[in-house]
Amino acid sequence: MAALLIILLLGALSVVYGAVTIRSVMAADAGNARMQEIAGAIREGAQAYLRRQYMTIGIVGIVLFLLLWWLLGLPVAIGFAIGAILSGAAGFIGMNVSVRANVRTAQAASQSLAAGLDIAFKSGAVTGMLVAGLALLGVAGYYTVLTGPMGVSPGSRVIVDALVALGFGASLISIFARLGGGIFTKGADVGGDLVGKVEAGIPEDDPRNPATIADNVGDNVGDCAGMAADLFETYAVTVVATMVLAAIFFAGTPVLASMMLYPLAICAACIVTSIVGSYFVKLGANQSIMGALYKGLVATSLLSVIGLALATHLLVGWGDIAGAGGLVLNGGKLFICGLVGLAVTGLIVWITEFYTGVGFRPVRSIAQASVTGHGTNVIQGLAVSLEATALPTIVIVAGIIVTFKLAGLFGIAIAVTTMLGVAGMIVALDAFGPVTDNAGGIAEMSGLPADVRRSTDALDAVGNTTKAVTKGYAIGSAGLGALVLFAAYNEDLKFFTANADRFPYFRGVSVDFSLANPYVVVGLLLGGLIPFLFGGIAMTAVGRAAGSVVEEVRRQFREKPGIMEGRDRPDYARAVDMLTKAAIREMIVPSLLPVLAPIVLYFVINAAAGRSQAFAAVGAMLLGVIVTGLFVAISMTSGGGAWDNAKKSFEDGFTDESGVTHHKGSEAHKASVTGDTVGDPYKDTAGPAVNPAIKITNIVALLLLAVLSHMA
Amino acid sequence: MAALLIILLLGALSVVYGAVTIRSVMAADAGNARMQEIAGAIREGAQAYLRRQYMTIGIVGIVLFLLLWWLLGLPVAIGFAIGAILSGAAGFIGMNVSVRANVRTAQAASQSLAAGLDIAFKSGAVTGMLVAGLALLGVAGYYTVLTGPMGVSPGSRVIVDALVALGFGASLISIFARLGGGIFTKGADVGGDLVGKVEAGIPEDDPRNPATIADNVGDNVGDCAGMAADLFETYAVTVVATMVLAAIFFAGTPVLASMMLYPLAICAACIVTSIVGSYFVKLGANQSIMGALYKGLVATSLLSVIGLALATHLLVGWGDIAGAGGLVLNGGKLFICGLVGLAVTGLIVWITEFYTGVGFRPVRSIAQASVTGHGTNVIQGLAVSLEATALPTIVIVAGIIVTFKLAGLFGIAIAVTTMLGVAGMIVALDAFGPVTDNAGGIAEMSGLPADVRRSTDALDAVGNTTKAVTKGYAIGSAGLGALVLFAAYNEDLKFFTANADRFPYFRGVSVDFSLANPYVVVGLLLGGLIPFLFGGIAMTAVGRAAGSVVEEVRRQFREKPGIMEGRDRPDYARAVDMLTKAAIREMIVPSLLPVLAPIVLYFVINAAAGRSQAFAAVGAMLLGVIVTGLFVAISMTSGGGAWDNAKKSFEDGFTDESGVTHHKGSEAHKASVTGDTVGDPYKDTAGPAVNPAIKITNIVALLLLAVLSHMA
Repeated sequence: MAALLIILLLGALSVVYGAVTIRSVMAADAGNARMQEIAGAIREGAQAYLRRQYMTIGIVGIVLFLLLWWLLGLPVAIGFAIGAILSGAAGFIGMNVSVRANVRTAQAASQSLAAGLDIAFKSGAVTGMLVAGLALLGVAGYYTVLTGPMGVSPGSRVIVDALVALGFGASLISIFARLGGGIFTKGADVGGDLVGKVEAGIPEDDPRNPATIADNVGDNVGDCAGMAADLFETYAVTVVATMVLAAIFFAGTPVLASMMLYPLAICAACIVTSIVGSYFVKLGANQSIMGALYKGLVATSLLSVIGLALATHLLVGWGDIAGAGGLVLNGGKLFICGLVGLAVTGLIVWITEFYTGVGFRPVRSIAQASVTGHGTNVIQGLAVSLEATALPTIVIVAGIIVTFKLAGLFGIAIAVTTMLGVAGMIVALDAFGPVTDNAGGIAEMSGLPADVRRSTDALDAVGNTTKAVTKGYAIGSAGLGALVLFAAYNEDLKFFTANADRFPYFRGVSVDFSLANPYVVVGLLLGGLIPFLFGGIAMTAVGRAAGSVVEEVRRQFREKPGIMEGRDRPDYARAVDMLTKAAIREMIVPSLLPVLAPIVLYFVINAAAGRSQAFAAVGAMLLGVIVTGLFVAISMTSGGGAWDNAKKSFEDGFTDESGVTHHKGSEAHKASVTGDTVGDPYKDTAGPAVNPAIKITNIVALLLLAVLSHMA
Repeated sequence: MAALLIILLLGALSVVYGAVTIRSVMAADAGNARMQEIAGAIREGAQAYLRRQYMTIGIVGIVLFLLLWWLLGLPVAIGFAIGAILSGAAGFIGMNVSVRANVRTAQAASQSLAAGLDIAFKSGAVTGMLVAGLALLGVAGYYTVLTGPMGVSPGSRVIVDALVALGFGASLISIFARLGGGIFTKGADVGGDLVGKVEAGIPEDDPRNPATIADNVGDNVGDCAGMAADLFETYAVTVVATMVLAAIFFAGTPVLASMMLYPLAICAACIVTSIVGSYFVKLGANQSIMGALYKGLVATSLLSVIGLALATHLLVGWGDIAGAGGLVLNGGKLFICGLVGLAVTGLIVWITEFYTGVGFRPVRSIAQASVTGHGTNVIQGLAVSLEATALPTIVIVAGIIVTFKLAGLFGIAIAVTTMLGVAGMIVALDAFGPVTDNAGGIAEMSGLPADVRRSTDALDAVGNTTKAVTKGYAIGSAGLGALVLFAAYNEDLKFFTANADRFPYFRGVSVDFSLANPYVVVGLLLGGLIPFLFGGIAMTAVGRAAGSVVEEVRRQFREKPGIMEGRDRPDYARAVDMLTKAAIREMIVPSLLPVLAPIVLYFVINAAAGRSQAFAAVGAMLLGVIVTGLFVAISMTSGGGAWDNAKKSFEDGFTDESGVTHHKGSEAHKASVTGDTVGDPYKDTAGPAVNPAIKITNIVALLLLAVLSHMA
């Protein structure tokens, strides 16, 4: 229990870090009255959105809580509630900091770039550390309560089911936050641009555009709250799945309890290294913002090697350990698996930066293609987005092979756990994005001097890349994590069929996961369909939400002609409110797709070919959804990031292959704006939402097994 | 042998049909001197392209022929040569008819729409019937020679290897023709439009544009020669794989020979029904072109039910038949499997028409989105393309479940065989497209009256839909066919490991295709990567080829200023020649990807984890490539078709939701042109080329097994 206590204390450290850092951010100067007025509008809008979103999720959540209680008992239902509440809290707190840090960043940027970076990064770090810390506290804390006061033995079904339900709670928040937030933000962005830039001819972030506050609200609900919920979920689900695998692989051995704690210990160590690493983020003499952020990331990674070694030393030791069924591992191999996880993280960050960063071949090729028009810009962007899937896949595959050879499935699980251990730092990089984006908007709307806008723009450009990088990391870890989840599904199934006397539903069930079984192919194809269909629905939803923004803005311009002349104040709140309703309405159907798909597939195949084939098809669906989802998500997020930065290339003038320089406002720039508009829902709605869709499919399948195990 | 003789005679019927129909097409009036001059330039360009393409393929082919001879013996190498030569011949003859029918269609259209339709459809039917007939003659003929004069017993390894090599020969032509043709056609189209419409401000098909002949050549090499090679391959590979499965499932039973002939008999019957069906294509009183084509398709389908029943009656009978290992089937069940194949064909045609046809929701939604700009047009087009994958997948999955339940894997194989049996009719619909497209171009360039152009435009619009429909059918059948190919791979592997005393390389090999094996996941992921990477490379290649066209056209305009004033004749041949070189150069690398991928994967995993895991990974790659390939190909071909027809919606004026009508030249129309440009390489290069990429990966894996079986 001493180890568990230390883990809980280190998890709590992140909350302390959050409190201290929030205080430091809030102590900064909040700027002049005009700035505070605008920031207030953004804050109100964000809160209004979250209130309504959480209300909707709350209703769904209560229904599911009661359902789980009825089907699987109170401990499981409580696990679900813990996951949902903590995941929601990480996003809620993070976003509340974010909408207060934005104006302070704008104010600080008017003093120096370093000061602006400091506030923006600190604000992001609050979200990041809370995501990692609360997820760890939730899993470790509930595990402590269950195995301590409640006296459940580690590795029992109750623990497994309760922790899986905790992951499901997090997933629920995640899919709604990702989708709802994504539809809101891009509906505001695309709709606001269409009616503002195109119809009314006013620039972006012009205070006369009634959708401009909604656009700024959207940045926060998408990239701050949405990403927080997403990575909270991946974090929790991965740690839980690794613990479940430990419970299975070391069942009945003396090392069971310590092996179950090992993933928690890795995460606890990495929280400390992330916090320490965050203090390394300082603008150097070369004024490179990306360089400053990388300093933090590199420091975190190097320190994590030490943390990983320490966790291994304390809980596993370096000698051979014996698992169930003749499995033999040793601490050294597990340590190397952890290092592979860190290496995969580093490589994916580096590859994503190559595909989305200004100055590299892919973005330059899109900028070059803009010179010949809208069509060629989009063709080249799609080509880059397709191509961008190759290297991350090869890195992930190499990671699978190396860790599996070293330590089997548990080795893969430890690699993913370590990869997610540093999520605090990675989310910090991402959540930094919307703060700087908002800061730029506030600077523009409140008429701060041009050099302030220049500082916030520089911060914003880096934010674009870090946002893409984090999404690459999120989907990469989900890809590896899916293997662990499939393993958990498979092992669960083995357990139930081997103990069919206690679980009569599984009597006579014998599942053939071979690719030669056509029901496996059916599952792969239908699983593979989910990301495509889901992506299509999400893209359409953005289009519809943007359409409703266009109509609202047109109505305001028509009814209050004074707005355009600057005499009347637009009704920002109405635009936010209307978009909130649209986003919440649009998120329902696609969210249900990954929840219902495995359940419907199970019952359809069960009716057609019996239980064994139904379990085979559902298992294959879990892998099918990751096989296409990985590619769909990477191509969308990388492609979108590349389009965005190809557009940015024109802002300082882009010199094409024949030596002509194209500036903002040129035909080539206009073509690049088209690509950016296409990339928006790609990278901020459909692409990142594929991630929770993959994991929710997986976790619903695990819960389905648990529910069926209670049936006759 | 009587059955085999009848099959060969029916196959030869298609050649007779081709000869008679070519004569009838050639007898039609070839128009005035100006028309013949233009048509002559297109013909020369097409021949120059094909000459160079076949020369390149010929060199690769001779190397592979010698390699196969050395590795697997002469009968296998000859099989390869037969597949390559006949596949090439189908495309070559078809295209030669097509480039002569185009001008005759234009001339006939100046008399009546019905006359134009008649010539264009007859020309397409020549290609269609030759594809089906030559493929059947190749497979059945070589089977006759091997089992007759050469005395090889049906079901021996030599037969299997030789027939698989025949499929490989067809695949080789297919991937080059699809990719090379696709890059050529869209390079000419996109490049010609960029420099002509955008820079010089001259309309499409204007004779002053030096790329205009290349554009018309491209239609033929892509949709006529390319599609012919593609479906020849699917046809041959499917029939071969079904025969291989029959050889395995009925090994050592008295029905072996007749079950191996059954797929050939189904195809032979369907060739007759396709020929008869082609005479039902007649323009009715309502002047509906699509209606006329549907009459032919429906007649073919209904007659095929009778043909299928006859083939079943003669070769299988309606009683129970016993296969190896306790398998029991009956003719009635196999007959129903065939009907399912026809039903899947009909449903896919219908679904594709819904997603790409003018007047349905998807195309209307893209047209509507064009009203708000380029960006929203592309977003909605991408949304439609993603969504369009759902229904075809569900149809395919339903087909798998029903036929597998009825008659196991052999039932699935019979369904795909029947689906491909009617390929003659389907290719006829597709090859009709480029003829009408060319006819329109010739009418425009030779200044025929406006009402002729109206007739050819009406034919062309229908051609767009039939082209999309055929691509949906091609990928759908490839999707089902891949299952059959995986089954062949799996059964081959079982055979070699069970007879490891004769095949020492397979000693100790025990392959685990379970999804729980991480090497299976590795294979699925790397297989899944192929269509994405392949698509990305193909899109980039089109961009580059278009760029070289732009430069060539600019150079001609610069050096001969008289071109624009109509005084100088542009050098069409140079543009064709330059583009030919570019297309051939660009097709090499992506073509090698699916050829090398399974081989490299095998040796890498063999080095890392031994032979058993390497075979598992390669097997999984075969399914991985279809799991993502199906979605990538359907989304690209349907999305591209929808974009194209959304653009066409504006040509007669599109009335949007708020009642405003947008005409050609409006901002909305310009936005729809951007979508069409993006859709071009999607639907005509990357999307359709995914199809041969899937099958070449599969067939290379089968050949790899055959080669390894000869090793120690």
